[in-house]
Amino acid sequence: MEEKMIVLVAFDGSKAANEALSLAVKHAEAFKGKVVLVRSLKGGADIDSEDIQTAEQDLAYAEQFCRERSVPFETHLLVRGCSPGEDIVRFAEECRADEIIMGVRRRSRVSKMVFGSNARHVILEAHCPVVTVK
Amino acid sequence: MEEKMIVLVAFDGSKAANEALSLAVKHAEAFKGKVVLVRSLKGGADIDSEDIQTAEQDLAYAEQFCRERSVPFETHLLVRGCSPGEDIVRFAEECRADEIIMGVRRRSRVSKMVFGSNARHVILEAHCPVVTVK
Repeated sequence: MEEKMIVLVAFDGSKAANEALSLAVKHAEAFKGKVVLVRSLKGGADIDSEDIQTAEQDLAYAEQFCRERSVPFETHLLVRGCSPGEDIVRFAEECRADEIIMGVRRRSRVSKMVFGSNARHVILEAHCPVVTVK
Repeated sequence: MEEKMIVLVAFDGSKAANEALSLAVKHAEAFKGKVVLVRSLKGGADIDSEDIQTAEQDLAYAEQFCRERSVPFETHLLVRGCSPGEDIVRFAEECRADEIIMGVRRRSRVSKMVFGSNARHVILEAHCPVVTVK
């Protein structure tokens, strides 16, 4: 039997992440795959319970989005001392993702193009194709 | 009737571009879409007939790849004085692409991560999702 396609979504609750989620569901539908929702929190001394609560709420929203569209999904809150970029690349390998979908921000406050170091890291280091949305 | 999904591939004949082409065909199959093959040449005083010939050969190869897989395609050689990044973003808008698939290079000669200005421009400026492959 062929393995289900795995679409990993880096979900941080932002507007771009919501676009990423929406596209991931479309891909999962077209390829009869599964959505793997990932939220990264760096952890360590910096983390407080409020951060965890927000992350859990974001993930609950994303889960509901998948559930309403009858798309198989699983959820992972990563707190293991890595930057989001590192977490996503590592977890994508661990779960054998076929693609990663993530949001990128487009403009900084001074209206210059910005490119997050996390997005850059994921695009350059991921073992699989990376889909960026805005 | 729903419009066919349009998958634009920036095809420069490189190894990464071949990965991009291969993924584009998979997407076109899954979404019952069309592959639009784009090769950009800056043009102007810099261009010589050899560059055009190489570009045409690369595109002919990509066309054959699509033809063998029975995926609808069209081909565009862009020579209009733009950088490849600008050409791809503009052409994606003109043909109403649903996604852009392009290769990114990963390592420079001194083994540092590099990120081409064209890839950066496309990721930040494209009106649609951008899929990067290595």
